[in-house]
Amino acid sequence: MRYSIAELARLLGLAFQGDGERVLSLVSGWDTADNESLIFIDGQKPTEFSSNLLPGACVLTSQQLVYSHWNAILSEKPKLDFSRAAEFLAPRPIGQGLIHPTAIIDPEATIEEAVEIGPYVVVGARTRVGRSSILMAGVSVGENCTLGENCILHPRTILYPGVQLGNRVTLHAGAVVGGDGFGYIFDGRKHVKFPQVGSVVIEDDVEIGANTTIDRGSLGVTRIGCGAKIDNLVQIAHNVEIRRGVVIAAQTGISGSTVIEDHAIIGGQVGFGDHARVESGAVIGSKAGVLPGKIVRGGQVYWGVPVRPLQEYKKLNALFGRLPEMKKQIDQLMVKQRELEEKFSKLLSKEE
Amino acid sequence: MRYSIAELARLLGLAFQGDGERVLSLVSGWDTADNESLIFIDGQKPTEFSSNLLPGACVLTSQQLVYSHWNAILSEKPKLDFSRAAEFLAPRPIGQGLIHPTAIIDPEATIEEAVEIGPYVVVGARTRVGRSSILMAGVSVGENCTLGENCILHPRTILYPGVQLGNRVTLHAGAVVGGDGFGYIFDGRKHVKFPQVGSVVIEDDVEIGANTTIDRGSLGVTRIGCGAKIDNLVQIAHNVEIRRGVVIAAQTGISGSTVIEDHAIIGGQVGFGDHARVESGAVIGSKAGVLPGKIVRGGQVYWGVPVRPLQEYKKLNALFGRLPEMKKQIDQLMVKQRELEEKFSKLLSKEE
Amino acid sequence: MRYSIAELARLLGLAFQGDGERVLSLVSGWDTADNESLIFIDGQKPTEFSSNLLPGACVLTSQQLVYSHWNAILSEKPKLDFSRAAEFLAPRPIGQGLIHPTAIIDPEATIEEAVEIGPYVVVGARTRVGRSSILMAGVSVGENCTLGENCILHPRTILYPGVQLGNRVTLHAGAVVGGDGFGYIFDGRKHVKFPQVGSVVIEDDVEIGANTTIDRGSLGVTRIGCGAKIDNLVQIAHNVEIRRGVVIAAQTGISGSTVIEDHAIIGGQVGFGDHARVESGAVIGSKAGVLPGKIVRGGQVYWGVPVRPLQEYKKLNALFGRLPEMKKQIDQLMVKQRELEEKFSKLLSKEE
Repeated sequence: MRYSIAELARLLGLAFQGDGERVLSLVSGWDTADNESLIFIDGQKPTEFSSNLLPGACVLTSQQLVYSHWNAILSEKPKLDFSRAAEFLAPRPIGQGLIHPTAIIDPEATIEEAVEIGPYVVVGARTRVGRSSILMAGVSVGENCTLGENCILHPRTILYPGVQLGNRVTLHAGAVVGGDGFGYIFDGRKHVKFPQVGSVVIEDDVEIGANTTIDRGSLGVTRIGCGAKIDNLVQIAHNVEIRRGVVIAAQTGISGSTVIEDHAIIGGQVGFGDHARVESGAVIGSKAGVLPGKIVRGGQVYWGVPVRPLQEYKKLNALFGRLPEMKKQIDQLMVKQRELEEKFSKLLSKEE
Repeated sequence: MRYSIAELARLLGLAFQGDGERVLSLVSGWDTADNESLIFIDGQKPTEFSSNLLPGACVLTSQQLVYSHWNAILSEKPKLDFSRAAEFLAPRPIGQGLIHPTAIIDPEATIEEAVEIGPYVVVGARTRVGRSSILMAGVSVGENCTLGENCILHPRTILYPGVQLGNRVTLHAGAVVGGDGFGYIFDGRKHVKFPQVGSVVIEDDVEIGANTTIDRGSLGVTRIGCGAKIDNLVQIAHNVEIRRGVVIAAQTGISGSTVIEDHAIIGGQVGFGDHARVESGAVIGSKAGVLPGKIVRGGQVYWGVPVRPLQEYKKLNALFGRLPEMKKQIDQLMVKQRELEEKFSKLLSKEE
Repeated sequence: MRYSIAELARLLGLAFQGDGERVLSLVSGWDTADNESLIFIDGQKPTEFSSNLLPGACVLTSQQLVYSHWNAILSEKPKLDFSRAAEFLAPRPIGQGLIHPTAIIDPEATIEEAVEIGPYVVVGARTRVGRSSILMAGVSVGENCTLGENCILHPRTILYPGVQLGNRVTLHAGAVVGGDGFGYIFDGRKHVKFPQVGSVVIEDDVEIGANTTIDRGSLGVTRIGCGAKIDNLVQIAHNVEIRRGVVIAAQTGISGSTVIEDHAIIGGQVGFGDHARVESGAVIGSKAGVLPGKIVRGGQVYWGVPVRPLQEYKKLNALFGRLPEMKKQIDQLMVKQRELEEKFSKLLSKEE
């Protein structure tokens, strides 16, 4: 999309300086910018900028960092407003109604208007795909699914039967939603599969990373709340509840029936036992481990296996690094104590 | 499938009470049950049940928990018998012989009767697919593979050439079986690939999770034994042997040539070095790490990096949490010892 | 491919003994060898070899281990030279120019000669596929991609738009290259997506494992250097730089903008915070954790969370195992010190 600097500033509710008529058509890094690029500077000016020459057509930055001869949109939060600007200059694509002739759409499926379906897509019976959604090459959607409006399913994403997506959900390539949960009961001889007949509900504005797997509920529902953002290669087990606005980094795994409340932030490679609960606003550092059934209180930062409040864990970890010193001190104490005891005994025997 | 309460109880070898003619057609959780649902209660009655009203047509529970006016199938192991009931009410699907016209099956492949093949499936030369197996949309099976009877390959699963599956194997979406093992020899300048020309054998009744990867043997075989259950996003390297009935939770990684013996249970996000061995019946907790070449003895529970017996590890971990106290005690001991020494010296000098 | 023992030895620049005319057609393990197999023995002779009977047509081994009546190619580095021999006997496949009629190739794409394209492949507009590359079943290549010569994309690999591959790149099944990086700015109410409009460059001779995910740069480039080898289920975030010859084992995750310099070796399940840097030749053990911004010095081995030099970490870990002993020693010291103080006080009071 193309906007003049003045238009874009107006849409963002920000002031600008310089040539308001200048046209912008993309967002760029300052090292790859061209003559229609919007770039941004946030906090620290790249040293290359000392020349005062602006690479690109316009910079989004703060009053403090701008040079008077630059074209600039002025912001107190350059990184946030640059991201907002990108929503105009490089908007999320919207379906244009093209359906590739190789797509196999069950006659009982409902495809709303402006839906775009790529080659070799398969859509099952009684599935409904909402307005302007995009299903890219090789996507497979099972029976009885519901997709809201403006969803984007990247190539080869897979929905098992009965999955529900809200509006503006993005699934990256290779993501698998609705696979069987992992539950077996040992009968003394073999593992009998516990039924995995529940469903998955993914609410509005969720983004799910590449090759992430989200299992269906065993009997109930696995739910991903509004606006949650989940990175690549994450595992979400049956009956998990991820609430509104939660952020989960790559390769984290969440066991069955665990609940992550609103706006919690979870680092990468974190592991959660089953039936745990993370309260609203908690932050859990990368590689941490949360024990089954554990309740992690809100509004704090945690780290470690098992998780402890960050400050406590950092202190313990520092002491872990001082174990050799502590060991040596103990050894010395024991030697000196023995010496002192001996001297004392000698003194006592002399006294008698 | 539909069964009367009396029929189902008879198939399970259990007693029932109430209306034996009542028809059941699905298993449900107690909160989503409808008038043909079988539900179960195991140990703890949901508080909502205090009303004595049974949600659903029948409950599978123990004599201790049942109300006399309920329709019930009585069991001392409700969760296990509910799972067995689900095998009747919601049985694993079996191929019905439909082959989608877009499936590309090599003329040299052998497809036995009742095999079901979905759209855009590709089957390579000299591959044999056993009776009643199901290959869902977009599955890709390489040359020279063998699939037993009643296998289910979910959408977009991939078998490299030469993979062998037993009977009733289930592969979830995106699983990749038979990819090259990861082995290189550095020649001083570059990494030369060690040949990865072995195969993968997956025995009967194995279930493999979504986006899990199982590499082929480099020269020999990677083997997954009868009835093993492997969760999502697990990595199994070349020449690994997973024996009968082993259970492996999500995101665990097993390095080359490691052996996991019968009925071991492995948690999520566990890592194994190469050439390790886990003896029969060992249990390894989530996020544990097993060093290369390590032998983990059977019949015990382990945790930690590197793994230690659970009780030992828990004790160590508790002491880790007491490091600040230990540090303080050492500091105090050093102060007091110095004081004592000084007092003692003073005394000695007085004595002389 | 078929070579006589004499020809193969000449190609490898090695001496041989025995029947130089004997034909070899495959590499095998000694337990699965047939009468055209080259096998190898490196260091330790399998006990089964005590019979002196050579399983297979020829052994590649050292002067010290060979029997005089064997057909043998002699090498001081048998494992390396066996790997080199495999490059002749079981060479990497090269495209033969077959394009399956179901492949959907955009009219604006450029397919060079001898490219091989399997069924249900999709190639986007303005993408160029270099000579003799192979795109297997169901591969999806977006718009504006560039693939060099002799690349192999295994089934269902996915390139998002704008990805560049060098020559002889191998992508295993289910790998996803060029997905959006994971970056959001919280506006106080919701997560606004930071633009993910950069690209991915994968240089010559890189191999990427199954279901691995490599995100595009947010504004700049994510780069994988010449000859790097990356295992299955690895996560590489936006703007990461993996340099020449780096090796990364399975399930490791690398956060945004981290740099791994030449020939570093990274174990499995390692986690890297963002903006970290691993210097050339460093080795990081499995399950280690590197903090954001951390610089890991080259030429050393590291382990632990957070990483420490291996020897230091091993020492700390050994002391961790001795915490119960240390605790006990501290307790005894405190008891004895109290006793000594009391005795001393008693003595003093007697003195007075």
